[in-house]
Amino acid sequence: MKGIRQLAEHLDISIGTISRALNGKPDVNEETRKRVLAAAEQLGYVANQSGRSLRQGTTNVIGLMIQSSKETVENSDNFFLTVTGGLQSVFSRHNLDLIMLPCPHDEDPYEYLKRMVARRIVDALILSETQRVDKRFDLLAKAKIPFAALGRSLSGVQHPWADLDFDSVANSAVDRLVARGHRRIAISVPTSDINLGFVFAEGYRHALERHGIPYDPALIIRAKSSEQGGYQVADELLRLEDRPTAVILIYELMAIGLYRRVMEAGIIPGRDIAVVGFREAPRAKFLQPALTCFRTSLHDLGVELAEILLSSMPAYNHLYPDTNRQRTWSLELVPGESDAFYLPSSK
Amino acid sequence: MKGIRQLAEHLDISIGTISRALNGKPDVNEETRKRVLAAAEQLGYVANQSGRSLRQGTTNVIGLMIQSSKETVENSDNFFLTVTGGLQSVFSRHNLDLIMLPCPHDEDPYEYLKRMVARRIVDALILSETQRVDKRFDLLAKAKIPFAALGRSLSGVQHPWADLDFDSVANSAVDRLVARGHRRIAISVPTSDINLGFVFAEGYRHALERHGIPYDPALIIRAKSSEQGGYQVADELLRLEDRPTAVILIYELMAIGLYRRVMEAGIIPGRDIAVVGFREAPRAKFLQPALTCFRTSLHDLGVELAEILLSSMPAYNHLYPDTNRQRTWSLELVPGESDAFYLPSSK
Repeated sequence: MKGIRQLAEHLDISIGTISRALNGKPDVNEETRKRVLAAAEQLGYVANQSGRSLRQGTTNVIGLMIQSSKETVENSDNFFLTVTGGLQSVFSRHNLDLIMLPCPHDEDPYEYLKRMVARRIVDALILSETQRVDKRFDLLAKAKIPFAALGRSLSGVQHPWADLDFDSVANSAVDRLVARGHRRIAISVPTSDINLGFVFAEGYRHALERHGIPYDPALIIRAKSSEQGGYQVADELLRLEDRPTAVILIYELMAIGLYRRVMEAGIIPGRDIAVVGFREAPRAKFLQPALTCFRTSLHDLGVELAEILLSSMPAYNHLYPDTNRQRTWSLELVPGESDAFYLPSSK
Repeated sequence: MKGIRQLAEHLDISIGTISRALNGKPDVNEETRKRVLAAAEQLGYVANQSGRSLRQGTTNVIGLMIQSSKETVENSDNFFLTVTGGLQSVFSRHNLDLIMLPCPHDEDPYEYLKRMVARRIVDALILSETQRVDKRFDLLAKAKIPFAALGRSLSGVQHPWADLDFDSVANSAVDRLVARGHRRIAISVPTSDINLGFVFAEGYRHALERHGIPYDPALIIRAKSSEQGGYQVADELLRLEDRPTAVILIYELMAIGLYRRVMEAGIIPGRDIAVVGFREAPRAKFLQPALTCFRTSLHDLGVELAEILLSSMPAYNHLYPDTNRQRTWSLELVPGESDAFYLPSSK
């Protein structure tokens, strides 16, 4: 791929003449025009339509940084592909393209981001897998690169973000279970320092407090966000002496592994143990009994996140004057059969 | 984010002086050095470490174009995230970064690619979802941009590709089923013109021929590559008058929907109907009875594809002199219980 500059060098003709020849302007003699067109064909000339201006330093490209651990990959975490559709539907209004920057699982996300910033291929960034303390926020703030985060962080107090409302999910799950007579309620949290785990655990703790239920650290199970993680959660629950009667999961695919493990032990979800899943996923629909979970539109979340980012970019913020730049994104409870029963003592 | 050029303009100092000041060279007076560092901080200066040279037109970035339809997204198609890991493990040897270019589902892939080429953010490209006839091959060849395709195409006779061996999968599945007495064997193929569907159907047809089994077009079921597609395949099979005794699926998640639909009709996979799935997926392990499927390493496929691409790039081909640039990638049959039974007539 060559541009006009390479063409000019190759032919030893000025860029201005090349440009006029390529654009069919009449003030270029026919022989020159033919030479330019032939060289353009030969070298694989591609017009630069990016609107990229060295002076302005803009690329019209927005980057979405994603991290994929081996475990989430093997579990088909397609969360991002859905959010991407929503992001693109907004960016396309402004002739902006979205690219995904996949941080290799064996590379430090901070160092990776630093390198991608130095590569200068994007005008702005969206971060995901936000950590409790996330140095990437400081890196981008210092480099004055507009960004928005999918997920809050202690580091991002001032910065734009959109985040699923993990607090409210934990609260309504606990409320629902308590109303059915449960007091021994376990939750799963991620093994990493991803911020959503802290928000979820805090919400759970507050909900217990509201109901006057003592907090028992043994009921907080750290596990990977995967089917295997769900299997492990069930395994640990089964080994607890004072076994919980209910469990709230933090990731949609965990229910599949959890169902499997408890059924191996002859325990039936929705009869012997109450299960509340996280996000409603097509796959969860295949579970029997139907899983109680939470519905949301990831596409619309992508739309919101794109608008939040644009409202933070000097070139676009006048177009999004009323955008709330810090936004928790609600989920709606979808009652299933997995937690429908009432504990005998509460009847 | 600003570069050295913006810094020079802002301060009205030459680029050479700025560079010497930033690099701590002694021939810059102290006051100038301080002014430069202060402005660098204020403007968010980022050193350009990309090795990008306007003269050479290189970015050291490789693009992987992916398309996601609504249906594959909702079914968590993470195929790419696994291949990506393999690609990156090779590219990182050469200080190359991989970015993903997600073509929106409502945009024509050819037009999208044209725009991304004009944006000039990548040195080379990997294409996926290769179509039977794929104009993108011609576009990149004309623009002299090195590329490799995940999947063959009639358009890509000369071009580098790696492709799962759909032909061999179809053949060994038919052989296995015929050995168990089946002669009415259905297959699923995609609804789109993606090339793998043609390769798969051809392999199936040849295998039938080898066994002297007549080809019946009614047994070729077009369906979406998703759980829902599997459900639909089962639904269509159940409505056939001369119902097949076996079915071969082309996508890993289809088995989940197919199991569900046939069980709704009281038909048990592995007893009443033989099912051969496609790729072994963690999720398929949860199916009862265990699905007969095919094992492969998508990570290693990514490694291979990266080497194929590099062997086609002028700057790297001397490092990969022995790479076979057109490579079918084998899968190993993993016998399960879903097709283990023998038809009574053949016993």
